Amino acid sequence: MKLLYQYSRISEKDINTLAQSLIPYNNHLKQVEKNGGYEHDESSINLPSDEALLDNVRKMIEKKSVEKIKYFIVIGIGGSNLGTKAIYDALLGYFDILEPERFSKIIFFDTTHALFAKHFTQFVDAQLNSKEDFFVSVISKSGGTVETMVNAEFIFNTLQQKFSDAKDRFILITDENSKLWKQGEKLGIDALSIPEKIGGRFSVFSTVGLFPIAACGLDIEKLRQGAVDMRNKCIGKEIPENPALVSAILLFLNNKAEYTTDDNFIFEPELESVGKWYRQLMGESIGKEKDVEDNVVRAGITPTVSIGSTDLHSVGQLYLGGPHDKFTTFIWAENANNNSGTLGSGTFTELVPEVKGETFLDIKGAIFDGTKIAYQKQEIPFMEVVLDDISEYSLGQFLQFKMIEMMYLGKLFNVNTFDQPHVELYKTETRHILSS
Amino acid sequence: MKLLYQYSRISEKDINTLAQSLIPYNNHLKQVEKNGGYEHDESSINLPSDEALLDNVRKMIEKKSVEKIKYFIVIGIGGSNLGTKAIYDALLGYFDILEPERFSKIIFFDTTHALFAKHFTQFVDAQLNSKEDFFVSVISKSGGTVETMVNAEFIFNTLQQKFSDAKDRFILITDENSKLWKQGEKLGIDALSIPEKIGGRFSVFSTVGLFPIAACGLDIEKLRQGAVDMRNKCIGKEIPENPALVSAILLFLNNKAEYTTDDNFIFEPELESVGKWYRQLMGESIGKEKDVEDNVVRAGITPTVSIGSTDLHSVGQLYLGGPHDKFTTFIWAENANNNSGTLGSGTFTELVPEVKGETFLDIKGAIFDGTKIAYQKQEIPFMEVVLDDISEYSLGQFLQFKMIEMMYLGKLFNVNTFDQPHVELYKTETRHILSS
Repeated sequence: MKLLYQYSRISEKDINTLAQSLIPYNNHLKQVEKNGGYEHDESSINLPSDEALLDNVRKMIEKKSVEKIKYFIVIGIGGSNLGTKAIYDALLGYFDILEPERFSKIIFFDTTHALFAKHFTQFVDAQLNSKEDFFVSVISKSGGTVETMVNAEFIFNTLQQKFSDAKDRFILITDENSKLWKQGEKLGIDALSIPEKIGGRFSVFSTVGLFPIAACGLDIEKLRQGAVDMRNKCIGKEIPENPALVSAILLFLNNKAEYTTDDNFIFEPELESVGKWYRQLMGESIGKEKDVEDNVVRAGITPTVSIGSTDLHSVGQLYLGGPHDKFTTFIWAENANNNSGTLGSGTFTELVPEVKGETFLDIKGAIFDGTKIAYQKQEIPFMEVVLDDISEYSLGQFLQFKMIEMMYLGKLFNVNTFDQPHVELYKTETRHILSS
Repeated sequence: MKLLYQYSRISEKDINTLAQSLIPYNNHLKQVEKNGGYEHDESSINLPSDEALLDNVRKMIEKKSVEKIKYFIVIGIGGSNLGTKAIYDALLGYFDILEPERFSKIIFFDTTHALFAKHFTQFVDAQLNSKEDFFVSVISKSGGTVETMVNAEFIFNTLQQKFSDAKDRFILITDENSKLWKQGEKLGIDALSIPEKIGGRFSVFSTVGLFPIAACGLDIEKLRQGAVDMRNKCIGKEIPENPALVSAILLFLNNKAEYTTDDNFIFEPELESVGKWYRQLMGESIGKEKDVEDNVVRAGITPTVSIGSTDLHSVGQLYLGGPHDKFTTFIWAENANNNSGTLGSGTFTELVPEVKGETFLDIKGAIFDGTKIAYQKQEIPFMEVVLDDISEYSLGQFLQFKMIEMMYLGKLFNVNTFDQPHVELYKTETRHILSS
């Protein structure tokens, strides 16, 4: 993975100055890694090298014999499913429509949805023939997430009606000693734990992400290896070899200069859900009313996700012609699949003669390069994240890079990166309404 | 459909003043409708009552006997597929994962994607057994859209290899006399035309949207009726009964007050693609470097799409705690499906006792109402669009409402609502790269 930032509008001098200010925090991250364990807010950096964690996941995968399932059902919302969905969609899910007979497929239940639930009842009836056809994970750190518990109840009851002892096909992923954990103990439903200090948006390399991803046959060891290698760069290296540090500084300084939006313009459509994972990471970590000294600052960068070349035909006009209020992170992969052969002059390509002799990848590259030149000419600042390819290893790198970037970025904004106090506002109101 | 705007931050007096200034334009819209035909930029308002158009679509549907197809393949990008995808996903596509045996399903090809193309080759091999199993529409106004022509070439050749005369299963949807139109005449591929003045983002009620939607068995007459009824309100009524006029004014005045983003916070997950359709409509129509007098203004509102309750667990913290730079349009449906029964106190719901005795819809309602109260308390301005339900008729209403809203909004910003000059910037660079 590479970070390119020649057109970021920010000088090397300014980058260096801010990097100096982050040395103490960088040392803190090194210490967190050296100590190991899960005592600190930043301890998620220790997940990808936690061998006991890997062992627990592996043993549970074996115990539950999930290799032959057709459907894996993930019940969880926010940090409990966004990382899993990011990886699944990138490597498998985006192609599901073209592969109706590839299994296992993941079905995600996040919000409560009456019609989706109704369709699920019919789905169980028509598609699930034995207990070996499915597996369900119920994921909630606190064990008290309304949408997750309601969906879990509905799915549990629906499956119990058709299959005896359907609970064997459930696993709970939750904080040790949460009320959900205790319910599992009481009822004999297996569980995997999440370390208390690991918040949802930093949990993709915990049991939360590893179990479903492994259950779908994807390689979690490569995912972890990518994360470990990237962590070592992002806490061990100085600029410019530390992409998380540089990228955090670019986002911060552009935001201070009124580039209030960070558009993640991804030129690999199957990474759209990776973009949505990042939306939560940035939105919850930096969007804060108060700084750590309790001053009202209303900090925040608005993360958006755009897909190339699709969105050039949608919001491209706005980005190129409209207000200069966006700092763009282009994201693409260097070694994407390219076995389509070169195009000739046929029925349809005859009408666009410039494509003759080009491959699918050449065309994508020309559109992307054309876009970057247009951005430069319009003086719209951007950086580029270049993945080696789209694989478990590269995704492990990217997700880890962005989580450590966010830690530096929170430090620069002087906010608490790890809390989300305002989420309570609507939850409190909702509870009032439900109780009255 | 209802528009509620008590918490929009804008006074009735300010709404009335701006509405006065739009009376001449309102009269112009009435005239466009009275004259009929497709001479004006605004002529898309005449599409839903064009009986000849409906007749052409119906006859082609009959001629091609699409009733028994399994897969409808839409090749098109931007305005050529976003409207179709909005309607398909809302009524069918969102549930596809739970209905593997419901046909026909739409497969969308927008950008060029080598790996997706590779999977398509395998898909044709494994899933398509006869020419009656599929149908393909190639949609490009100009007939010169690179991605669309490249995808069409690839899909055409792939299908021709397996099925003789596969071209009978193709239709071209394009401007009469475009180079694609002429190619169709030369090669004997059927075509349906788009009126020249109808731009992509205003074309959902033309052949562009009607043909694929009808081919999937959805009711295009109800869709059209919704659009006609809404048009009559949005050009025939004064405020407050004219939702397009009011909504345009609210968006404009909030933007002038530094609410630079319009967050479309949709509490019906199956409408996410409707949000993406609107992103293009607003992005391309209002995001303009120059006003109609050629002054550099860099106008634009950034449209974002959020999904409730899902995104409360993602960007909710940012929206409630972060910068006050977003004007929110909540979108939801009043009579959504609600046959899940009431929840008891079970294995999982025991852990969230406040849901006892509630239905899925009650819970969704409580979360939504809780969110609105939290927005009010934080003084975050919003309006609400309340659909009657999620049906062809309601979608026809909504899409028409937003297209006419955009015409008023362009007038208020004093920009040309109907062009997209900056899209040429990257296209020119791309052509240079491909030709060199």
